This record gives sequence, C-alpha cells and structure tokens, in this order.
Amino acid sequence: MARKSFSHLECSVANTVELLGDAWSVLILRDAFLGVRRFEGFVESLGIARNTLTDRLDRLVESGLMEAVPYQERPLRHEYRLTEMGKDLFDVMMALYSFGERWQPGGAADRFRAIHVDCGNEGHATVHCSHCGERLTRRNVRLEPKVPAAETSSA
Amino acid sequence: MARKSFSHLECSVANTVELLGDAWSVLILRDAFLGVRRFEGFVESLGIARNTLTDRLDRLVESGLMEAVPYQERPLRHEYRLTEMGKDLFDVMMALYSFGERWQPGGAADRFRAIHVDCGNEGHATVHCSHCGERLTRRNVRLEPKVPAAETSSA
Repeated sequence: MARKSFSHLECSVANTVELLGDAWSVLILRDAFLGVRRFEGFVESLGIARNTLTDRLDRLVESGLMEAVPYQERPLRHEYRLTEMGKDLFDVMMALYSFGERWQPGGAADRFRAIHVDCGNEGHATVHCSHCGERLTRRNVRLEPKVPAAETSSA
Repeated sequence: MARKSFSHLECSVANTVELLGDAWSVLILRDAFLGVRRFEGFVESLGIARNTLTDRLDRLVESGLMEAVPYQERPLRHEYRLTEMGKDLFDVMMALYSFGERWQPGGAADRFRAIHVDCGNEGHATVHCSHCGERLTRRNVRLEPKVPAAETSSA
C-alpha cells in the first residue's frame, strides 16, 4: 500500500493524519492505550492478519509513536509500547472517541466507555484553549496564515 | 482502494477513523473548515487529482459529513458544505492540529495557526471532561467494558 506524502502541504493536521496511517494503525494505538503490548494480544483483540499487524507495528515504530522492547531472549521477542510521542496522542484518541459516541447510532454497543476517574462520570472530551482554558469552538477560533518572523517585525 | 469495514469491532474510535477515510479526506475537511466550498477551490488548495477529489467528496457526502448544494443551474454545479455532523469534527481537527504542532520539528513552516479569538493567543487544544470540565489525561481516564443496562440493575 503506497502512501502519498503530504509533507509538501506543510500542515499540522495533514502531517498528523499521515503519521497515524490507516484505521488499523489507529486501532493498534487504541489497544496500546488499553494496555495491550504483545503481538498475540493485538491479534486476539483485533482479529488482524499477522502480516498486516507486522507491517503496521513496523510503521508505528518507524514513525516514533511506538517502540519495540525485548522481553525474551531465546527466541527473541519484543513487546510494543507507546513512546512519549505516542502517549501524547491521548487527546486525539479522546476526540475521535467522543465524536464516535455522539454520532454512532449504535453507540450503546461500543465495547468500552471512558470514565473520568476524578468526577466518576463518563468523560466525553471537549476541546479547550491551552492558554486560557476556555472551550474552543468553530466560532471562537480563527485560522490565520503564518507569516515568517521577518515579515511581522515591520509593516 | 478497497477499505475494510471495522464495524465488527464496535468501537467509537474505529468507527470515526473509518468515517474520516484517508488523509485526502481529512485535508478536504480541513479546507472546508477554512471556508473552501467549490471543487476548483479544493483542487487549487490541495493540488489533488480531479478524479481523487471527486471520489473523496462523494464519500464525504455519502458518510454524512458534507453535503452537495447546487449553486448554478446550467450547467449544474454543486458546492460542498460541512453538515452539522461534519462541523462537529472540529474537536478532532483541533486535536490533530495541536499534536502536529507539538511534534513536527518543521512546525514553524505550517501554513496556518489557530488563534483563540477571545483570549488572543494561539489556541492549542487540550481535552477536558464534558461533565466537570477538568483536564483529561491518560492517568485520570479509565476505560471500562460497557455492560448492557439489564446487567447493571442488579448484582
């Protein structure tokens, strides 16, 4: 499966989507957040073909989202853990989860629900400004072209 | 490009990823958030092949994220708008954007930055509990299996 590179578009959204890869990769990441670490664990959880899983794990390691850590010498076996970069996808995963919960009519059939431990409620995610903490919406976020620093210093 | 259906996995994350489609679809959605509506506008912005764009727009309309609205009778021409469901992807897009900004070394080259109008700062997204408003993290969210209502009424 050849993937077109979107790097020429110089966009954080595009780059992140490219990094995530396909739905299988995201499902592997989701399972990693749920604590799955071993090859057989992913096979069992996802019903994924072994060659597909090998390919996606290799990509996730190559992209820096996961790391392969040996847990057995003979024969050599690795388990797959989220890196700090991978763990930082938590917000993306919660946003994907919450959207799915809102719009999938069969939501009640979902296998998991996310509980916010501190308040005890099902924690659907809302997105807030990292600077002031206010809820971000389509109405209060303006996308503006970035200008190089040199162009901002004088009009 | 045949896509495997992930609906058997009954997971909100998987369903949303499947709904998003590929990187091209997400880039089209991003442009739609930026105000692009017409076929030629997407071609110009993304440098996307016309047959690829037609295919992805058809999928986005079919999935309910965008709608095709006629703006000219002869010849018939449509523009493509986000539906309410599509607009609700805002949180997902902001989470993708913020992750990319944090981890792409070439972030300064990105074309856009998101300004939170109310506070005037660049608004990187953080994810909060929709119930109590507290910041959600890997540490304070527990994923637990959903049980049917019948099983929760008595132990």
